[in-house]
Amino acid sequence: MRFVSFQHDGHAMLGVREGDEVRVLGEETLESLLARGVDLHAYAKLESGLGKVSAAGLTLLPPLRHPPKIICVGLNFADHTSESKYQQPDYPTLFFRVDTSLIAHDEPMIRPRVTDCEGLDFEGEIAVVLGKGGRHISKEQALSHVAGYSVFNDGSVREYQFKTPQWTMGKNFDGTGAFGPDLVTPDELPPGIKGLRLETRLNGEVVQSASTDEMVFDVASLISIISVGITLEPGDVIVSGTPAGIGWARNPKLLMKAGDVCEVTVEKIGTLRNVIADELGE
Amino acid sequence: MRFVSFQHDGHAMLGVREGDEVRVLGEETLESLLARGVDLHAYAKLESGLGKVSAAGLTLLPPLRHPPKIICVGLNFADHTSESKYQQPDYPTLFFRVDTSLIAHDEPMIRPRVTDCEGLDFEGEIAVVLGKGGRHISKEQALSHVAGYSVFNDGSVREYQFKTPQWTMGKNFDGTGAFGPDLVTPDELPPGIKGLRLETRLNGEVVQSASTDEMVFDVASLISIISVGITLEPGDVIVSGTPAGIGWARNPKLLMKAGDVCEVTVEKIGTLRNVIADELGE
Repeated sequence: MRFVSFQHDGHAMLGVREGDEVRVLGEETLESLLARGVDLHAYAKLESGLGKVSAAGLTLLPPLRHPPKIICVGLNFADHTSESKYQQPDYPTLFFRVDTSLIAHDEPMIRPRVTDCEGLDFEGEIAVVLGKGGRHISKEQALSHVAGYSVFNDGSVREYQFKTPQWTMGKNFDGTGAFGPDLVTPDELPPGIKGLRLETRLNGEVVQSASTDEMVFDVASLISIISVGITLEPGDVIVSGTPAGIGWARNPKLLMKAGDVCEVTVEKIGTLRNVIADELGE
Repeated sequence: MRFVSFQHDGHAMLGVREGDEVRVLGEETLESLLARGVDLHAYAKLESGLGKVSAAGLTLLPPLRHPPKIICVGLNFADHTSESKYQQPDYPTLFFRVDTSLIAHDEPMIRPRVTDCEGLDFEGEIAVVLGKGGRHISKEQALSHVAGYSVFNDGSVREYQFKTPQWTMGKNFDGTGAFGPDLVTPDELPPGIKGLRLETRLNGEVVQSASTDEMVFDVASLISIISVGITLEPGDVIVSGTPAGIGWARNPKLLMKAGDVCEVTVEKIGTLRNVIADELGE
C-alpha cells in the first residue's frame, strides 16, 4: 500500500495511491495516525466517501511533515566513507535533521543565497518510518516497528557542513531535505529492504548507484542500536545513508545549480524528483 | 517573571513563581502559548481562579517538554574548546538534542546501563527560549525574539559522543538533558544575559565557573547566525554552550555515578539540581 500526503483545496490530505489515482482518506496525518497506534492497512480500507483524484495533478507534501525525530545516518556505505576521507566507524554515525528543512517531491530544492555557498550537493537515501516506538528494541524485533519506507534526498550545503566539527548546519538549511513521494508499506517490499537498487541521477546522468545490501548497518541494526540510548516514537524517520558518488568528492567538484533536476530512485519504492532553485533574495 | 511547568493531580500545569508560591495559570503549555503568539506577561496577569500552590512541594517539568527544536552550541567558550582538544571554529558548532532526552529540575539524570559507559559527564549551560521565530534575523533584532532564559545541564555520555565523527548519540540518551527550573523573562535580566556567572557544582564542589561574557558567540549572534539557514520557530530552545571544567577532560577523569548531586547555577536565573541514577536493568 502506498500512502501519499498532498494539498487539496488548501487542506493537507492523506490518500492511497491506486494506479493513476489517489483515493482520498481524509485530513488526519500519518504522524497522527501512527501516534494513535492506528493500523494503516485497516484505516486505508475504510471508505471515506471523499472519492478519488487524479495522481497526475497533485501537489504532494512530504509523507510526514512533522515527524517527532528525523535521525540521519552518515558513513553507512563503505565506498562513501572512503570518498569522504573518513575512517569507517564501527558504530552508526548519527545526526539529526529538523522538519523546517523538509520539502516534498516536485518541490524546489533550495540553494541558499549565502555568498560562500557553491556546494549544494545531493545524497540519495532511503527513509524508514517507524510505526511503533520503543527502547532497547532487539534486532530480531526491529523490522516489526517499521510502518513503511520512502525516498530521501539529504541535500547538503557542503561549506556549512564542514565549518565546524559537527555537520548540523550544512544538513539543515530550509528547503534541502526532500522526502517522498510515497510511504510504501513493508508488505510491498523485501524484508528489511534487502537487495534494492538505489540510484541518483542529476540531469538524467547516473551519479550514485548501489544496492541496499552494501549498507554497513542495515535497517534492523539501526533501529536496534539507536534504541539502546534513545526512545524511538511512532512517526520517527531514520534516513539510512548515502552511497558513493556525491558531487563534493569529485574532481572537479560537481555542484548543483538552479534549474538542475535531481532524481533519486529506489527500486520498488519510487522516484523522488526535485528541481534546484536559488533562494529568493531580499 | 518566572514561569514554571509542573505536575499537579496528574495534569501538566503552568504557573508563575511568586516568592514561595506558584500561582496556577492553567493547562496550556508554554510551547502552545508561544506558538499562538501570546504575550506571556499579559497572559500571566490574567487571574485563572486556580489559586496558588506552595513551590516547595511541586514536581517540576521542563519549562517546555516538546520544543520544536533544541539547538545546542558546542565549543562556545575558548577554554572549553582548548580542554576538548579542538581548534576554535569561527562559526558556531551546532548539534541537536531531541526532546526524548529531556528531564526536569530534581528529576534523576540517568547513567545508561550500557557496559561501555563510565563517562556520564556534566555541562552547565544557559537555555535561550525563543518567543518569536523567523529567518534571516539581524543581530540587532535578535534579542527581541527571546521569550526567556533557563538553565540546562547538557549531560553527555562521552564514550558514545566520540564513537563516530558526530556527537549526536552521546548527547541524546534518554534522561540526560536537564532543563529548568524556571523560564525567566528577559526583563528580569541584563540584555543578552551579559555578565552573568555560570557555575556547576558536583557534590557541592565547584567544577565549572565562568562569565557569560566569555561566550565566543553571544545570544544575539547565535540567533542571527542560525537563522541564516534555518527557520527559527516560537518555542525553539538554543542551549548556548559550556565553559571549561568538564569531567572528561580532567586527569584523572571525573565521572558521575549514582547518588552524585549535580547543580548548575546561573546568576539571576536559578539553580538546576539533579541527582544521578543508574538506568534500571531488565
